[in-house]
Amino acid sequence: MKTANDLFKEFKILSVSEFFKKNADMLGYTGKIRSMTILVHEMVTNALDACEEAGILPEIRVEIDQRGDSHYEISVEDNATGIPLKFIPDVFGKMLAGSKAHRNMQSRGQQGIGVSGAVMYSQVTTGQPAVIISSTVEEMWEVKMNLDLQKNVGKIIEKNKIKDNGWRGTKIVIEAKDVTYIKSKYSPYNYLRMSSIANPHARIEFIEPDGTKIVFPRSSKTMPKSPKIMKLHPRGMSTDDLLVMARNCRARKLGSFLGSELARISRKKAEEIERVSGVSLDKNVSRLTWNDAERVVNAFKEIDFMAPSSEGLIPIGEENIIKGLSLINPEFSVAITRAPRTYRGGIPFIIEAGLAYGGKSEPGIEIIRYANRSPLVFDQGGCVINEAVKNIDWRRYRVNLESTPLTIFVNVTSTHIPYTSAGKQAIAMEEEIFNEVRFGIMDTCRGLKRYMDSKRKAYRKKQRMDSLLKYAPETSKAISKLSGRDTDKVKNLFIKIIEKKYA
Amino acid sequence: MKTANDLFKEFKILSVSEFFKKNADMLGYTGKIRSMTILVHEMVTNALDACEEAGILPEIRVEIDQRGDSHYEISVEDNATGIPLKFIPDVFGKMLAGSKAHRNMQSRGQQGIGVSGAVMYSQVTTGQPAVIISSTVEEMWEVKMNLDLQKNVGKIIEKNKIKDNGWRGTKIVIEAKDVTYIKSKYSPYNYLRMSSIANPHARIEFIEPDGTKIVFPRSSKTMPKSPKIMKLHPRGMSTDDLLVMARNCRARKLGSFLGSELARISRKKAEEIERVSGVSLDKNVSRLTWNDAERVVNAFKEIDFMAPSSEGLIPIGEENIIKGLSLINPEFSVAITRAPRTYRGGIPFIIEAGLAYGGKSEPGIEIIRYANRSPLVFDQGGCVINEAVKNIDWRRYRVNLESTPLTIFVNVTSTHIPYTSAGKQAIAMEEEIFNEVRFGIMDTCRGLKRYMDSKRKAYRKKQRMDSLLKYAPETSKAISKLSGRDTDKVKNLFIKIIEKKYA
Repeated sequence: MKTANDLFKEFKILSVSEFFKKNADMLGYTGKIRSMTILVHEMVTNALDACEEAGILPEIRVEIDQRGDSHYEISVEDNATGIPLKFIPDVFGKMLAGSKAHRNMQSRGQQGIGVSGAVMYSQVTTGQPAVIISSTVEEMWEVKMNLDLQKNVGKIIEKNKIKDNGWRGTKIVIEAKDVTYIKSKYSPYNYLRMSSIANPHARIEFIEPDGTKIVFPRSSKTMPKSPKIMKLHPRGMSTDDLLVMARNCRARKLGSFLGSELARISRKKAEEIERVSGVSLDKNVSRLTWNDAERVVNAFKEIDFMAPSSEGLIPIGEENIIKGLSLINPEFSVAITRAPRTYRGGIPFIIEAGLAYGGKSEPGIEIIRYANRSPLVFDQGGCVINEAVKNIDWRRYRVNLESTPLTIFVNVTSTHIPYTSAGKQAIAMEEEIFNEVRFGIMDTCRGLKRYMDSKRKAYRKKQRMDSLLKYAPETSKAISKLSGRDTDKVKNLFIKIIEKKYA
Repeated sequence: MKTANDLFKEFKILSVSEFFKKNADMLGYTGKIRSMTILVHEMVTNALDACEEAGILPEIRVEIDQRGDSHYEISVEDNATGIPLKFIPDVFGKMLAGSKAHRNMQSRGQQGIGVSGAVMYSQVTTGQPAVIISSTVEEMWEVKMNLDLQKNVGKIIEKNKIKDNGWRGTKIVIEAKDVTYIKSKYSPYNYLRMSSIANPHARIEFIEPDGTKIVFPRSSKTMPKSPKIMKLHPRGMSTDDLLVMARNCRARKLGSFLGSELARISRKKAEEIERVSGVSLDKNVSRLTWNDAERVVNAFKEIDFMAPSSEGLIPIGEENIIKGLSLINPEFSVAITRAPRTYRGGIPFIIEAGLAYGGKSEPGIEIIRYANRSPLVFDQGGCVINEAVKNIDWRRYRVNLESTPLTIFVNVTSTHIPYTSAGKQAIAMEEEIFNEVRFGIMDTCRGLKRYMDSKRKAYRKKQRMDSLLKYAPETSKAISKLSGRDTDKVKNLFIKIIEKKYA
């Protein structure tokens, strides 16, 4: 029999990149078709976020070149601010590094894993370095970089300063094997099409492996407002969150800490917190115990606060969703931006739902899902949006799930999207999000029902008119015989009356 | 407009535990009911693995105590070898640390995240340390420990040596808030019931919050064979894998490296690899380039190898599955262990399928899913097993998905389960696994169909016999009149003949 010491000889520690190398499925790298789309997704996500943060209307260029059997080169270029040289290895080569995860702000990426994961996949399948070309206002560099997976660091293996030619932005070029390009629902083509629908302010150019150039044009020239860093709302805080913040803040006393670090806490509110929790506002914040913090957090739950500000959350907007859906060329479309809500107490989110009927929609329901405008292409089965769609009584809206040609659009905007996996393709089953998605879709369905009803009414009217018109010649003849008037005149008058009534 | 330098002021690096704290959904901590079950799951997984590795028949004791509103204490005790003091902080407090991830061996845990995640959830919701009591052959300790999430380390805050009382094993006690205990399909109760079905060699004792004691008894006294560490199979190797191994191996030359580190490579095979790849077996392994390694890996794909050994994989076994399913008290049950197969070229796996009809099964299909005997309770929608079930033409087997009372059991055994998420509740859509699961279920369905057919046949026979018996008295009377024999004698003879034919 083995003893504990025998068994623990094998104890080791992995780096986060070794972990995701071993578990590439968790980043979405499952199968050749999906892996290709995930690579494009991660690089485009980064590119769009970079433009958004800089307040620049995005011009994204994606090119996929075939190099051999299941072997491609993929490049994505943006027109944002570029990346300073010293940050390039961390941005593209260090997992869990980034400017997004620790800030309470809406962005497509939120983990600091995605694009480093893409570089990892490239390296593991081809051994080739990633090439990054980046031009900031200060300087322009072309860099080749590798990953040291055991240490979770990016390493520059070659760098060349390039003479500034006025271009600003970042271009990343990677090679990958074990991927394939097929034009399908799960392909980069559809991913970019979906991106374009939810980002009508972006121009996306795409060169397919066979050289076909596709442009998804900008359908809106208004730059969306930049998302803002938001203070955390008291209702969304856990005791642990509060303690971690207390340890890292500049304030000395609890009162000033609460007022400066959290949202919606006025002097009056702070006094109410003191009264309810029994923890003095004069307490030195560095001496806050778990028990103190828990009492404060419990007080947060008892006291009424203004809902979290939604000004930092930037939805797409109804008009823009309709513009986006116009890509489908629908017979009828409708969109709604719901009012902001919160989940888990205080994390703000906004649901947008859109619906396109007919046009290029195929028979049956297609759900297109987004989180902070980023398309979710895979894992539909495990996503709260799918659950919400299933939970709707579609017959009420005269929709047949198999035959009605319907595209349903849902976008979840939040400072923190509760993804089920690091692959960021499905949103977890948070009850408040589930309800809001359901309500959002039902809102758009009411619009659809009105349209379908009026369409049906118009159809019935037309049928009635047609049958009356059919008998008009005979009837006119009879009337003309009885009245002695001219047949043609009677007929024309008759047709005029019918058309006036039914047209 | 912002410049790159403005934007990159906010660049920071997270630790892996901070990451999973922010993204607890990825570990499965979504909602109070699910969070409770995930906590139990992680602790029981560790306990069963510990027994398995030590070759000990598991006696697991799980106790859940209510402490307040949404506030519980959970303890799990095993009878394995215990954990040496110096490893306790790493086992329970350091994510990505463990003895499982880097070894090519079947185990329930494979990430080194699960139980540290449970301790994290406990600390974040209650601020309380975890209590670990561990007794090895050398010594017995009771330890209180905390996590430093920013550094991803466990810290012992109190330790007491306890006088050895002969007990061996590990007990972990945590407190958690934001959890709740409800007896449902998703509860710890059902989780343990499912664990018991797939681990008939384990005795599991469970104390519910209201004091109810439930024992899932041991239905098999044979200890399953211990899984073995397996060498990697050439077909499952990527170029990167080969290079990483080459850098860390003791062999000097390619030939001895291949022969000693990989499975199924004889001297003759090695020579074939040399011939096909053009890379000399005498090449110094530390000088292997990407190009060399890629040529070797390409040769792996062209050459025939024996399939990976499956001796390291320990399936549950048909007999034990049937024993496990007997918990449902089924009218009919059947199980199959399929032959070993590989996915992604060379990762071996075995599918087992079982099926229980009637008994305590409710009308409709219930799928119970396992990975290395560990129940998968959540995320069914995103799991390859679910996809495979959906893909079967059930009418062929006389099964009505809504009304036939059927429990379908699937266990995937592998050295590496391709989970879709660190929460380990769904298996990724690997084509080979999908096909095998489908075949496995179809195998059991054929058994079911035979049973249903024979049941139907027996029913028809019985009907026929009953109607003949009904007319026996009248017919006997008539025959006795015609033949002059005694009516009762005729009748008894007649009944005998009918029963002989139809019984």
